[in-house]
Amino acid sequence: MGMVGGGLDAFIGAVHRRAATMDHEIELVCGAFSANPEKSKATGHSLYLPPDRVYDTFEEMIRREKELPEGERMDFVSIVTPNHLHFPPAKLALENGFHVVCDKPMTINLEEAKALAKIVEETGLLFCLTHNYTGYPMVKEARAMIKAGKLGEIRKVIVEYPQGWLATMTDTSGNKQADWRTDPSRSGAAGCMGDIGTHAENLAEYITGLKITEMCADLTTYVPGRQLDDDGNVLLHFENGAKGVLHASQIANGEENDFNIRIYGELGGLQWFQMEPNTLIYKTNEAGARRIRTGVGELSPESKAATRIPAGHPEGFLEAFANIYHNFALTLRARMNGEQVDPIYLDFPGIEEGIRGLAFIETCIASNDSTEKWTKFKE
Amino acid sequence: MGMVGGGLDAFIGAVHRRAATMDHEIELVCGAFSANPEKSKATGHSLYLPPDRVYDTFEEMIRREKELPEGERMDFVSIVTPNHLHFPPAKLALENGFHVVCDKPMTINLEEAKALAKIVEETGLLFCLTHNYTGYPMVKEARAMIKAGKLGEIRKVIVEYPQGWLATMTDTSGNKQADWRTDPSRSGAAGCMGDIGTHAENLAEYITGLKITEMCADLTTYVPGRQLDDDGNVLLHFENGAKGVLHASQIANGEENDFNIRIYGELGGLQWFQMEPNTLIYKTNEAGARRIRTGVGELSPESKAATRIPAGHPEGFLEAFANIYHNFALTLRARMNGEQVDPIYLDFPGIEEGIRGLAFIETCIASNDSTEKWTKFKE
Amino acid sequence: MGMVGGGLDAFIGAVHRRAATMDHEIELVCGAFSANPEKSKATGHSLYLPPDRVYDTFEEMIRREKELPEGERMDFVSIVTPNHLHFPPAKLALENGFHVVCDKPMTINLEEAKALAKIVEETGLLFCLTHNYTGYPMVKEARAMIKAGKLGEIRKVIVEYPQGWLATMTDTSGNKQADWRTDPSRSGAAGCMGDIGTHAENLAEYITGLKITEMCADLTTYVPGRQLDDDGNVLLHFENGAKGVLHASQIANGEENDFNIRIYGELGGLQWFQMEPNTLIYKTNEAGARRIRTGVGELSPESKAATRIPAGHPEGFLEAFANIYHNFALTLRARMNGEQVDPIYLDFPGIEEGIRGLAFIETCIASNDSTEKWTKFKE
Amino acid sequence: MGMVGGGLDAFIGAVHRRAATMDHEIELVCGAFSANPEKSKATGHSLYLPPDRVYDTFEEMIRREKELPEGERMDFVSIVTPNHLHFPPAKLALENGFHVVCDKPMTINLEEAKALAKIVEETGLLFCLTHNYTGYPMVKEARAMIKAGKLGEIRKVIVEYPQGWLATMTDTSGNKQADWRTDPSRSGAAGCMGDIGTHAENLAEYITGLKITEMCADLTTYVPGRQLDDDGNVLLHFENGAKGVLHASQIANGEENDFNIRIYGELGGLQWFQMEPNTLIYKTNEAGARRIRTGVGELSPESKAATRIPAGHPEGFLEAFANIYHNFALTLRARMNGEQVDPIYLDFPGIEEGIRGLAFIETCIASNDSTEKWTKFKE
Repeated sequence: MGMVGGGLDAFIGAVHRRAATMDHEIELVCGAFSANPEKSKATGHSLYLPPDRVYDTFEEMIRREKELPEGERMDFVSIVTPNHLHFPPAKLALENGFHVVCDKPMTINLEEAKALAKIVEETGLLFCLTHNYTGYPMVKEARAMIKAGKLGEIRKVIVEYPQGWLATMTDTSGNKQADWRTDPSRSGAAGCMGDIGTHAENLAEYITGLKITEMCADLTTYVPGRQLDDDGNVLLHFENGAKGVLHASQIANGEENDFNIRIYGELGGLQWFQMEPNTLIYKTNEAGARRIRTGVGELSPESKAATRIPAGHPEGFLEAFANIYHNFALTLRARMNGEQVDPIYLDFPGIEEGIRGLAFIETCIASNDSTEKWTKFKE
Repeated sequence: MGMVGGGLDAFIGAVHRRAATMDHEIELVCGAFSANPEKSKATGHSLYLPPDRVYDTFEEMIRREKELPEGERMDFVSIVTPNHLHFPPAKLALENGFHVVCDKPMTINLEEAKALAKIVEETGLLFCLTHNYTGYPMVKEARAMIKAGKLGEIRKVIVEYPQGWLATMTDTSGNKQADWRTDPSRSGAAGCMGDIGTHAENLAEYITGLKITEMCADLTTYVPGRQLDDDGNVLLHFENGAKGVLHASQIANGEENDFNIRIYGELGGLQWFQMEPNTLIYKTNEAGARRIRTGVGELSPESKAATRIPAGHPEGFLEAFANIYHNFALTLRARMNGEQVDPIYLDFPGIEEGIRGLAFIETCIASNDSTEKWTKFKE
Repeated sequence: MGMVGGGLDAFIGAVHRRAATMDHEIELVCGAFSANPEKSKATGHSLYLPPDRVYDTFEEMIRREKELPEGERMDFVSIVTPNHLHFPPAKLALENGFHVVCDKPMTINLEEAKALAKIVEETGLLFCLTHNYTGYPMVKEARAMIKAGKLGEIRKVIVEYPQGWLATMTDTSGNKQADWRTDPSRSGAAGCMGDIGTHAENLAEYITGLKITEMCADLTTYVPGRQLDDDGNVLLHFENGAKGVLHASQIANGEENDFNIRIYGELGGLQWFQMEPNTLIYKTNEAGARRIRTGVGELSPESKAATRIPAGHPEGFLEAFANIYHNFALTLRARMNGEQVDPIYLDFPGIEEGIRGLAFIETCIASNDSTEKWTKFKE
Repeated sequence: MGMVGGGLDAFIGAVHRRAATMDHEIELVCGAFSANPEKSKATGHSLYLPPDRVYDTFEEMIRREKELPEGERMDFVSIVTPNHLHFPPAKLALENGFHVVCDKPMTINLEEAKALAKIVEETGLLFCLTHNYTGYPMVKEARAMIKAGKLGEIRKVIVEYPQGWLATMTDTSGNKQADWRTDPSRSGAAGCMGDIGTHAENLAEYITGLKITEMCADLTTYVPGRQLDDDGNVLLHFENGAKGVLHASQIANGEENDFNIRIYGELGGLQWFQMEPNTLIYKTNEAGARRIRTGVGELSPESKAATRIPAGHPEGFLEAFANIYHNFALTLRARMNGEQVDPIYLDFPGIEEGIRGLAFIETCIASNDSTEKWTKFKE
């Protein structure tokens, strides 16, 4: 793996590195960690990379790695830069024969997303988008239960993503994470809805297997001086007639990262909270609530394959993130070995999820600007 | 107290009786418990009422009680009938000099609500509407904290009322509670939004002290054959610029009565869950979450006055309901004794809350029927 | 019902009154509410009792009530005084033909307890001891599940009763509740273990249906100047070979009334927390945890009979307390009417539980004073 | 790092490998992974180790690695074998100049533990014992709060470690983890109390900073045919006069790994649950409960140094385990570089904790065999 972005003070770069290497299947072999060559070098040094595999730019990395013999050069690129810098390295990597793992949202707008989809299709290479929350075992269990019909026809979906860290400007002055996320030129058309709203959209569609068809969005910028939305409330319609509510916030004062979802079908309901990720609550009118737990009792193969340690030993955010890389790595290895991959490992987000994410962002903006109640989900 | 409705098999009648008498301040002295005189008699008998104070109709009750000497006749009427039978006895009672306690929603439509308001105004009598959830100590604490500025300017309100008991038709066939609630002629224009959506609207406005100004509603009847909505999702705008989401459901399979609210302001957030009513969670970015508990530490006078037993001895639904009656009773007694009432006890819902409830229902319906995003809250 | 004790500033007297009258089956008709006649009168007045039914002493009450015609006089006496004043009025009431409800612990020592048992046996009258925590529906459900063999043979019991209100002397100076509870002449040989340890012992034996056979107790008085234990840790052996731990505390700083129990058998485990009383957690290795909830799905008749309102409308401490009175009242009424009582209603604590409570206290003290590991539970 | 034990089907070996490499500070360079050379080879292969660094025995590994030039050979040995195989490789490694990380309990008996202590002292090398639960940020926060006097003098400690996985023999037949843990020749004198009781003892002493001085233990083997205890209840006395209860179980049917601790002092109480490890509950009589959360607000430097990602992104068991390795690695690196180590990183368990663990086990056995109430904690 070669990394683009992820300098020493970046949050998500270190997450990707820990996640990618957790199962001893992926090794970081090179990187262009920062636009600032000194920072890139320092990062590479701290990671014990040989200096000649630490590059000043992603262009240099891709060119030079390509020149290395197969088996020695990186097998894929992991892109962990701010949103506006996803497309250029992804495109270049793919065009030079490297598979790609990319942080979300996939690109800075829908147009770019579609252009990237075309390149992936043309090159036939693997593309993995790190919608990491789908890596949690209990998220996979929820999806498996719904697929198995345990909830019957889905009727209602409530998906929430409240955070409080951007409740004031001063909280975030000089905070590198906050900085680019609230800057339209680096983050894209949406702030909160792009950064975390897309996770909510992705989780709802992943678990239910249903696509959103129209939306009614009410976005707000609460903090004076901020350029992008820091909060949004959205009514949802799904393809099967199910309805829902999605809301996300960066100004929900006192909230950490309380991403959660509830799904109600004809036969029962499910609840999952990211901050207690190893519990999935399954409710029916007849039998009350059951706590389904990571590693306990009968579970789906998908959930089991995403679990490393015995029940009661909590696996968290990094392990869920690692599950995305794990599935990607096993799929890639099977492909490199000319083997069939177990379908369980094909379960990682990719181009399609990336396009839906950008379409979600643009539909949010369009709906928010409209006086019509419903705006079609444009893809 | 004389009761209208509340026959033996009614849910809410028994709740009112237990709530009214919990503090030994109110005595049930007469009743017209059912449209069926036999049932009324049987109910009165089971409650040890003298047969001559058990009436066949509310008209008879009001007429005959009025003939009794002061001090012996009932002081007020408690109306616990289905919605379409709130207005007639309320009107008649008021016009005959009896104060009124009435279940919610106040009337079957906004027009009737306004007519009732006029009668209350003209007679100068007390009118109490049992929006019972405002009786919980921690709801009062939340309101007091917001009034005291602990949250700063309110930005976002999420209020939810999921129930699952009407998830199917068969669940409810022959269920008297379900029966009238899903019949427009007895329930009014809305089903779910009238029965529990109004509680959500009331709670949000009570705690925040803010009025809803416009709404975008998406109502659904999920269960085939049902005449009224059994689910609704609503975007809210408040008078101060705050925004919110209100959703309620009777088809949220597996949910009991999980009414809850979250409120975020510039300085912090609050969470309250009806099913664990003695805990109020107060969150700030700086200090994380604090559990404020009924009876523990420094609390507002309003919360303390609504608490009967020491901390850790859970008070529940009946006690909260009793707090509405308690405040009403102390206010009534002060009035009867020509005394000043402690303002704490004036805190019970009345005509204004009743009008807002009906206006909420009618705005829900209007918004749901509209293709416009926003519908003004019509009062 | 005539009440002994329960003056205006008493905690438990008001609880008994609310509990007794909750279901409109019992009426307070007279009382000797305080050793201070003025206080007794004021209490009676505030409860709207006729002055001639408010007595200066319990002796007077029993004598004068006995003179009243049947049907008019009180049917039973409810004793809510400090522990040292349980036996005298209980004895006198029984000897004069009145049934008795009495707060716990039943008497001030085991000798008195046995004497009382003899009187009850001789008079053949009903005696009810308000070990109120057995009135919770989910406690009854736990007992029913164990009786039905859901847990298999019981192996381990953990019962805890932590409170923090007596963590310092100053917390409690001038606190009437604290006052007598920490005074050996009014409370008996144990402080914490008498006041709340007995509840723990009773709950463990009630739910499991097993008797404690030997104990190893470690009692402590943490607060300087206090005369009685304010904390105790006890190892338990049960008659079937099950083992356990019981601990109780009044100095567990920050705890309210967090009484709870866990029971493990060959086939599964149960957990119940008094502060969230409507949830019973049932765990098995195979299926994880299920939340059994008051009023939801299939439940035992015992649990259903102890539930007044639909699921999700929390019933609390007063309702559980009322269930003791409710069962007593229905049993008493059946007896007065010469009818057979439904065995469900015979489920209220009585003399046997009272004796076990005092034996528990005395065994605690004996074990604490011993250097032997095990002390037989002396009864 | 060279590893002894941890073949492919071992639980704890994979945990150590993930933990050790999580922060990119430690690299696995060699191993003797199994007594079975084929298994050792297969494990090494799956971990991409060069075949010549995969050894048949730990003796071979230590001898051959020693022959490699400095900088190339392993810096330390990580021992993850069953208990009876801790001492021999630890001794050999230390005597050949390699630092040691070792799983707990440190040795198979106290005598061995003391012998090992002597060797560590004589060689002056680093020794780290993976009492991993002390690696959680909120455990460190609890310790820091107590050290800072937030709880005042400690009075009471309740530490619990219930598991259910060994509730039956059939659960565990053919389960390699269960196999050696229930075999005295490989596990030592205690089963449950050695495997998890020692964690409980260690956590209690770590957080409070207090040493246990005497104990009263009641151990049980519930499952017929099992040779070692599968459950234990223990009363504790601490050096400052504090008292406590420790209980652990492998037959607590339905429990996963619900290790938890409560500590009460004069001024407040703390609660921590391993299964929700990022929350620490701080309670006082005055202010109720506060949830202290990993990464939120003001925290101790120790807790912050043990945290990798922002609040609300749950860190779990592997991250806590990694914190032990992280502190060890930073201490080792400072030593290798001749630098001063930040005292924060000296916070990892070592020889002293190992001796206390074995002394705890032996005191448990002695107390269980005694008819005396109290047995001195023998060290």
